[in-house]
Amino acid sequence: MEEFRVKRYSERAVYDKNKLFEMLDKNILCYVSFCENGTPFLIPMIFSRIGDFLYFHGSYESRLINFIGSGNNVTIGITNIKALVVATQIKNNSLNYESAVLNGNGEWVNDLEEKIQFFKALSEKFIPGLWDYSKIPSKEDVERTAVVKVKIEKFSMKVRNGEVNEKEKYGDLWSGIIDIAYSYSYSGKIDELPGFIKSFINI
Amino acid sequence: MEEFRVKRYSERAVYDKNKLFEMLDKNILCYVSFCENGTPFLIPMIFSRIGDFLYFHGSYESRLINFIGSGNNVTIGITNIKALVVATQIKNNSLNYESAVLNGNGEWVNDLEEKIQFFKALSEKFIPGLWDYSKIPSKEDVERTAVVKVKIEKFSMKVRNGEVNEKEKYGDLWSGIIDIAYSYSYSGKIDELPGFIKSFINI
Repeated sequence: MEEFRVKRYSERAVYDKNKLFEMLDKNILCYVSFCENGTPFLIPMIFSRIGDFLYFHGSYESRLINFIGSGNNVTIGITNIKALVVATQIKNNSLNYESAVLNGNGEWVNDLEEKIQFFKALSEKFIPGLWDYSKIPSKEDVERTAVVKVKIEKFSMKVRNGEVNEKEKYGDLWSGIIDIAYSYSYSGKIDELPGFIKSFINI
Repeated sequence: MEEFRVKRYSERAVYDKNKLFEMLDKNILCYVSFCENGTPFLIPMIFSRIGDFLYFHGSYESRLINFIGSGNNVTIGITNIKALVVATQIKNNSLNYESAVLNGNGEWVNDLEEKIQFFKALSEKFIPGLWDYSKIPSKEDVERTAVVKVKIEKFSMKVRNGEVNEKEKYGDLWSGIIDIAYSYSYSGKIDELPGFIKSFINI
């Protein structure tokens, strides 16, 4: 697994595979970019990682699934915004974020057991505990669904953390970090929720 | 502005320009995809919309900024996940989301006033009220920053809302919608925050 070199803001570059995997494993959605006849395509995709591969599923008729399965090259991106960095001068505003871009070639996943492992990984990323609770896909369900994978052959990662970076503060204006958080909630009857879902959404 | 036709799950397709603009205007980050010599590139970018154009800024040395400025074709994507849709069968799990993909050709923005309008739009998307509160960019700051825009020539949008869609429920397992929300917070002294920021983060 090779790293892209990050040119702009290279002090924000991260070349740690464990950091990359950590970020991939907490996200369910990524963006897959590919070229056909010089035209750029971009498709948001649900994914899961196993080892050095990202797995995707879809219909056997899907253009993207067939494109990846046929061994073509794709670039994949994920970014999480963690905070607004508010400076006294507009030009110094920024974001705290983590961002990964990967590149690799695709292939079909035809092995039944490997496909099931992917569905399990995806389900456990969705809500940990869901796989054991729910009705899992039958052999026929698995066979009906197309699965492809992309080997992470190159990656780059950028992270900005921390405080406002402003050499010249303007007057005594306020500056600081506004954190952004995700939260889960359920608008129905809490008592009906299975325990593992209550834990997941912190009720 | 033409629409792409959405092939898969076409019942989720939306062809309403106002819905598109609403979604664009509440997001600060998008993904820009482009092709060079058949290789797909994907870069997360901060943006703002004015009229039928998406604006981006960066360094005059940036590869993407120069690529867009030179009139090339790019595809831009944004997706917001709004809920986990948890079914009784793993294969029926889904997400509630909204997703937009746009395509168009780029151009340089050289007019000083147009550049300032973009910086203002971006700042007001960051936190409404920030532009009037902060030190705005000087003429020199604006001139030093490269700005490009992409006309939205084609777009497609998909939205999934609502409940679990499951013909055959498995046993009496729980199924339902787990909502996902963003929230802002400040870990410092609340009293020090300007009023418009308190309002923005709902304190």
